[in-house]
Amino acid sequence: MKKRLNMAEQSMKANILTAALPYIQKYAGKIVVIKYGGNAMTNDELKQDVMSDIILLNQVGIKVVLVHGGGPEITGTMQAMGIESKFINGLRYTSEEAVKVVQMVLCGKTNKDLVKLICKSGGRAIGLCGLDGAMISTKKLEGQDDLGFVGDITAIDPTPILDIMNAGYIPVIAAVGVDDSGQVYNINADTAAAAIATSLKAENIILMTDIRGLMLDPEDPSSFISEAKVCELEAMIQDGVVTGGMIPKVRCCAYAVDGGVQKAFMIDGRIPHAILIEMFSDEGIGTMIHK
Amino acid sequence: MKKRLNMAEQSMKANILTAALPYIQKYAGKIVVIKYGGNAMTNDELKQDVMSDIILLNQVGIKVVLVHGGGPEITGTMQAMGIESKFINGLRYTSEEAVKVVQMVLCGKTNKDLVKLICKSGGRAIGLCGLDGAMISTKKLEGQDDLGFVGDITAIDPTPILDIMNAGYIPVIAAVGVDDSGQVYNINADTAAAAIATSLKAENIILMTDIRGLMLDPEDPSSFISEAKVCELEAMIQDGVVTGGMIPKVRCCAYAVDGGVQKAFMIDGRIPHAILIEMFSDEGIGTMIHK
Amino acid sequence: MKKRLNMAEQSMKANILTAALPYIQKYAGKIVVIKYGGNAMTNDELKQDVMSDIILLNQVGIKVVLVHGGGPEITGTMQAMGIESKFINGLRYTSEEAVKVVQMVLCGKTNKDLVKLICKSGGRAIGLCGLDGAMISTKKLEGQDDLGFVGDITAIDPTPILDIMNAGYIPVIAAVGVDDSGQVYNINADTAAAAIATSLKAENIILMTDIRGLMLDPEDPSSFISEAKVCELEAMIQDGVVTGGMIPKVRCCAYAVDGGVQKAFMIDGRIPHAILIEMFSDEGIGTMIHK
Amino acid sequence: MKKRLNMAEQSMKANILTAALPYIQKYAGKIVVIKYGGNAMTNDELKQDVMSDIILLNQVGIKVVLVHGGGPEITGTMQAMGIESKFINGLRYTSEEAVKVVQMVLCGKTNKDLVKLICKSGGRAIGLCGLDGAMISTKKLEGQDDLGFVGDITAIDPTPILDIMNAGYIPVIAAVGVDDSGQVYNINADTAAAAIATSLKAENIILMTDIRGLMLDPEDPSSFISEAKVCELEAMIQDGVVTGGMIPKVRCCAYAVDGGVQKAFMIDGRIPHAILIEMFSDEGIGTMIHK
Amino acid sequence: MKKRLNMAEQSMKANILTAALPYIQKYAGKIVVIKYGGNAMTNDELKQDVMSDIILLNQVGIKVVLVHGGGPEITGTMQAMGIESKFINGLRYTSEEAVKVVQMVLCGKTNKDLVKLICKSGGRAIGLCGLDGAMISTKKLEGQDDLGFVGDITAIDPTPILDIMNAGYIPVIAAVGVDDSGQVYNINADTAAAAIATSLKAENIILMTDIRGLMLDPEDPSSFISEAKVCELEAMIQDGVVTGGMIPKVRCCAYAVDGGVQKAFMIDGRIPHAILIEMFSDEGIGTMIHK
Amino acid sequence: MKKRLNMAEQSMKANILTAALPYIQKYAGKIVVIKYGGNAMTNDELKQDVMSDIILLNQVGIKVVLVHGGGPEITGTMQAMGIESKFINGLRYTSEEAVKVVQMVLCGKTNKDLVKLICKSGGRAIGLCGLDGAMISTKKLEGQDDLGFVGDITAIDPTPILDIMNAGYIPVIAAVGVDDSGQVYNINADTAAAAIATSLKAENIILMTDIRGLMLDPEDPSSFISEAKVCELEAMIQDGVVTGGMIPKVRCCAYAVDGGVQKAFMIDGRIPHAILIEMFSDEGIGTMIHK
Repeated sequence: MKKRLNMAEQSMKANILTAALPYIQKYAGKIVVIKYGGNAMTNDELKQDVMSDIILLNQVGIKVVLVHGGGPEITGTMQAMGIESKFINGLRYTSEEAVKVVQMVLCGKTNKDLVKLICKSGGRAIGLCGLDGAMISTKKLEGQDDLGFVGDITAIDPTPILDIMNAGYIPVIAAVGVDDSGQVYNINADTAAAAIATSLKAENIILMTDIRGLMLDPEDPSSFISEAKVCELEAMIQDGVVTGGMIPKVRCCAYAVDGGVQKAFMIDGRIPHAILIEMFSDEGIGTMIHK
Repeated sequence: MKKRLNMAEQSMKANILTAALPYIQKYAGKIVVIKYGGNAMTNDELKQDVMSDIILLNQVGIKVVLVHGGGPEITGTMQAMGIESKFINGLRYTSEEAVKVVQMVLCGKTNKDLVKLICKSGGRAIGLCGLDGAMISTKKLEGQDDLGFVGDITAIDPTPILDIMNAGYIPVIAAVGVDDSGQVYNINADTAAAAIATSLKAENIILMTDIRGLMLDPEDPSSFISEAKVCELEAMIQDGVVTGGMIPKVRCCAYAVDGGVQKAFMIDGRIPHAILIEMFSDEGIGTMIHK
Repeated sequence: MKKRLNMAEQSMKANILTAALPYIQKYAGKIVVIKYGGNAMTNDELKQDVMSDIILLNQVGIKVVLVHGGGPEITGTMQAMGIESKFINGLRYTSEEAVKVVQMVLCGKTNKDLVKLICKSGGRAIGLCGLDGAMISTKKLEGQDDLGFVGDITAIDPTPILDIMNAGYIPVIAAVGVDDSGQVYNINADTAAAAIATSLKAENIILMTDIRGLMLDPEDPSSFISEAKVCELEAMIQDGVVTGGMIPKVRCCAYAVDGGVQKAFMIDGRIPHAILIEMFSDEGIGTMIHK
Repeated sequence: MKKRLNMAEQSMKANILTAALPYIQKYAGKIVVIKYGGNAMTNDELKQDVMSDIILLNQVGIKVVLVHGGGPEITGTMQAMGIESKFINGLRYTSEEAVKVVQMVLCGKTNKDLVKLICKSGGRAIGLCGLDGAMISTKKLEGQDDLGFVGDITAIDPTPILDIMNAGYIPVIAAVGVDDSGQVYNINADTAAAAIATSLKAENIILMTDIRGLMLDPEDPSSFISEAKVCELEAMIQDGVVTGGMIPKVRCCAYAVDGGVQKAFMIDGRIPHAILIEMFSDEGIGTMIHK
Repeated sequence: MKKRLNMAEQSMKANILTAALPYIQKYAGKIVVIKYGGNAMTNDELKQDVMSDIILLNQVGIKVVLVHGGGPEITGTMQAMGIESKFINGLRYTSEEAVKVVQMVLCGKTNKDLVKLICKSGGRAIGLCGLDGAMISTKKLEGQDDLGFVGDITAIDPTPILDIMNAGYIPVIAAVGVDDSGQVYNINADTAAAAIATSLKAENIILMTDIRGLMLDPEDPSSFISEAKVCELEAMIQDGVVTGGMIPKVRCCAYAVDGGVQKAFMIDGRIPHAILIEMFSDEGIGTMIHK
Repeated sequence: MKKRLNMAEQSMKANILTAALPYIQKYAGKIVVIKYGGNAMTNDELKQDVMSDIILLNQVGIKVVLVHGGGPEITGTMQAMGIESKFINGLRYTSEEAVKVVQMVLCGKTNKDLVKLICKSGGRAIGLCGLDGAMISTKKLEGQDDLGFVGDITAIDPTPILDIMNAGYIPVIAAVGVDDSGQVYNINADTAAAAIATSLKAENIILMTDIRGLMLDPEDPSSFISEAKVCELEAMIQDGVVTGGMIPKVRCCAYAVDGGVQKAFMIDGRIPHAILIEMFSDEGIGTMIHK
């Protein structure tokens, strides 16, 4: 015998599901690239929420691609293996030894753990990295300082991602690349996500962060910036509205939108189901960058 | 600028959407035949709810087929046209004049109005009847009394329904059939839905009614029967648990389940979003018949 | 045992079939839109001939689309329902009540009766109207007089027609449309046929009429105009060669040809098998309009 | 300006075309293997008629396969090349020299001339023989007398024929085969046609002959046998009803019908459009063999 | 029990196979048209080598099309049939009688013998000529002298070749064409190969000849020209470097390369496996013409 | 200008390529699972040879699946991370800490390095493990001793492998599996390869080892066993012919062959191009197990 049912609750649930319909229709068949990182990746409960969101989006016909970097696991493994971390002007230097650990942890641990989690929740995922089908071509990142084996993306071949996606899987992609000589590089995951989104002609890119979004005054919640045009961003950097670690993130958004992605979102990954809330409400939860 | 967002509310909504995921996964790619009728068809608000439910189910990958009869509209048009209603032992007799009105109202008004409503809400529907592709073959229903042009289904050709469904539309089907000589017949819509569900090897059939479901004692809500096996049904009829108009409905369910449909549901169409509640909760809302 | 065979007759038949080959080859795979109406629609024998012609064309690989309006059936039903017909400057006014009857009769009676007839003769037809897949978008027709719910086509979505056609069915289309608010409109069937032919990039459009075709002098059969260029038509209207009800028909032809349809024909639907004769002979039977 | 039209004639033509519809519907999508030979192959007018019939059948959706042997052309070329014809007990002996001429004439002249004729009349044909795709495997025919390189079919691979057919061409097949060692053999074309029809699971096989069909008394036209069952044939041979060259033909028909072909026809190729008359009338023109 | 294995030999073989990989990868999926003729066609051992090469290329994913003319077989058959050879200014005149023999021998003997040989070696070939699908349209070649039925190609329809190729067969094509009236023409096989290669947008065309390739001094092997640009060819003809029968061959190469074929090769068909050596080594064996 | 060519050498090469044709034809379209391991995986030159062999096989139409375990890299990383290796009766115990390192090294390092190597040599590979698409289901291996997180395969879902293969990639699979609770297990790679081969209905499985193959007397090369039947294997184990580490390998072969794989090979991975030599010669190089 089936259990009793709270009718009022059920009715409310049905109303909420029905209210999601226009958003589902809007995104159906579209590609959404999600850069996964921060607290949402370290907190187990948030992690499970993200996986649920992704499987739900995928199930209702939205083509989700998950891009991730590493995080504490890399540092932990390097420490455990006694590999010293070197810093150049405050930026981490990736030695030849280190890039091997990066590949091993990103592609073998972080990536496959995510794949496992999605599959365990009833989704179908396949874990890839920039080496699979040689899809992320890189060269050494040129800059003020020599950061070692940190890569600059020179080309993305979206074919393997599309093949995996069209066969019905959620592609989970670790941000490492390779050059013609076979040298592997560590790549910034935000940058990788933006390049992948552009190559896939994605509808949206969503960067998960650990802050609320852009604010005119970080102390004043009411100064939250819920949307901005690409053309306004550089001024916001000049004016000090966008600072520190948000600068490269904002530039990734601008890169993607300039490259044809319709909208870029920076959302607060600390909020449970942040992805679903952002995509399935008019108000959204984070800062939206558009043309 | 986007509007403010009530975070607690959004979070709750996201939880509810996520909670629907297992049900969506369970039904993905399956065919569900819904017999639409009763109050849910005359009350405008309930009607809109049903359409929303159907579009939502379709959007998340469940293949919905809507089967309907007529209702007050037929009587109204017959009255307006001055066609007298004749009754035999309390059962309506369908004269040659009447069956023409039935076809006209069912296929031209009820059917196309439903199609219009679905399309207006963002769905894609095509309206069919048993004459399209000659898909519902009928002969005169034999019985105690001669009820005129009331049809007994002899064969269903599911091809047109499958073709329409596979081209991405929600088929909306008016319950009229045709015999080899071209004579049109009025068909009981529950019976049509059961025959269609069987021919489509549907996962579920859902009959929308105007009562709560089966009950041991109609006065006692706690005597509600939430599930029953096909083999128990005839005894329930003998014992007077199932009476009156519920007898043919219960037999339709039995017919469908015997014919390979996994589960048949009789749900209370007076409850908003009854379809969604039934399909997206473990408890369900109506009476489920299974093997 | 098989019957005896008249050899001379058979030989003649074979010669005639063989003579049809070049025409079959010429139209194979092409789309031909036929506007069905007039006597060919009210006379049962002519009706059967039209259905045979259509099935034959379809069977030999020509993609036929049948578009129809209503006719006496609408007036009859309105009278039977006691709905008064209102006229504005001699043109019928379509009240809100009337447009409901139009939809009901066109989509439920005329349309499905045609579908039934085609299927009974061994063809495969599906009956559609402008509401199915929301394929005919309309707005209120603006003009000198307010004619009520008479529609002006704003867009045709040919997808549902193509989907039905590619699944192997003959689409039979009732000329009603719908606006964004869900209001249904009566549409002139010639206009609908021309718009549909254009949206389908049809090879030909054939308008069935109750007159012989264009004539310089209606009294003189020898003045029959067997072909005319689009650019000559307006002068013919100015000169009084084309008059009355033929003016909108001629303009439909011009619209279609200007929109990319190769040839438009106005043929005399009172002649048995007029469609076949027009398409399968060099001389043709009616007036052909081309670029 | 288009020419005048004889309306009565056109009407009659339309009626005849319409009368063909049920036959076209009956055979649509079915495979019909035609063994072409005799007068129909040597008389230019009859030849053109056969080609027209075949293209028409193909155009209306019937899948025609043409199988042919040689005829006077082989003898002519052998004579011209000074190759002596040797006879064993009245049967022609195919020497190694002769089989080379057979291949050359059948595959290079007869076959390609037929292909050319079909293409010139607007059809699309491709000429094959048993060597193409090694589709007709043969061994030396064992019998009372050694007839040289006369082949006995051991296997047919229908794939090349189906591939050609599915790509939209009419396959024209010369009756030569090959053994494992690469030795080419002359094959009886009736036998080849029957084996091909069986391997293709054809609906019908039609053997074109130079006689009226089977007759109880060859002198009495009224004794014509319009149909016979396979099980009756051997008795007819025993009783001397079927004699001489008709015996192997009748056995080919029996072989095909036993192998799953629905009906086998022996028709009089001297009658213009004999194929069309046989297929498009209830009475037929020749003798039909069935189960 | 398996036989003993010479390990050094096997290892060497494996190295050679592995060394072929880059060439296989380079040509995979590309179309290569081979004009087959000369000694490679008359010497049985060379013939078998060519067939092996073609099957191997086809098996590793290269789409090979074989085009051939006739040779001694035509002359032989004409002599055997007592048809006199007429010469105009040293060039053979193709009479109406002669062109019939050409067709018969080329399409019936040479072509089908090649098909047989490929199939016997495990390949899948289908023999075509310009008459199949009417794919080579020709007119009478105009020139100084009337050479009779020698054809000038006016159009190639590559569809039949592509259809055959895509169905997995190696097309073997005899160089005869046809005009609108159905008249067959003898065509130069080099010219046919070049026109076919152009119509197929082939990667390479390979002309098999009986000389080493282009040489500055025919007496001096060291003066061999291994590659030349199209723009250099006319000067080479003017300067007498290219003479006699090589002039039309060189012009065929130029025609193909100008028409979009990447590279044209003239290779020495007297060398066993000349095709494989040319395609699977950097140095090549013959003269390469490119843009 | 192209380089000179040694004609004798080229001719020999062509002969060798041609000699490979029958083997290529034999395996075309078939699936071959290769268990990669031992010296062939640690020696860089041998590694490159294996990759070349695999790409070549793949390029000529053989569907290769590469399955691998770990090796010294796991031990090295565990040592570097200070994880102690525990042994139970001489067998390594996989602790919870250890299985995490196994996953990380196998899936992130070994697997992706192989993928990189194949792509660098012009192949297209994608790296998978048993977690991708949850394709290798495992439970804890039951045995005499508790070996920790060593897995016993309960089911293989070949879909992800087939999807990847059909999209044109070489699947490279790391031997780790997962149970319903999400616990990861280390799996013996030979066992994984055998189970995968069986689930894919592979033609062959090839186990790369570091010994010559089975021998009656390990000291006597002439006692080499080049083939054996499955039914003979257990007796060979009983008789001490198969000993030590070869016993599980031999049982893997038996398992695969019993499961429908045509042939299982144990080859000496220390021999360069051992795979190619085994597959492309009649004699082979290792021990073949068959039904």
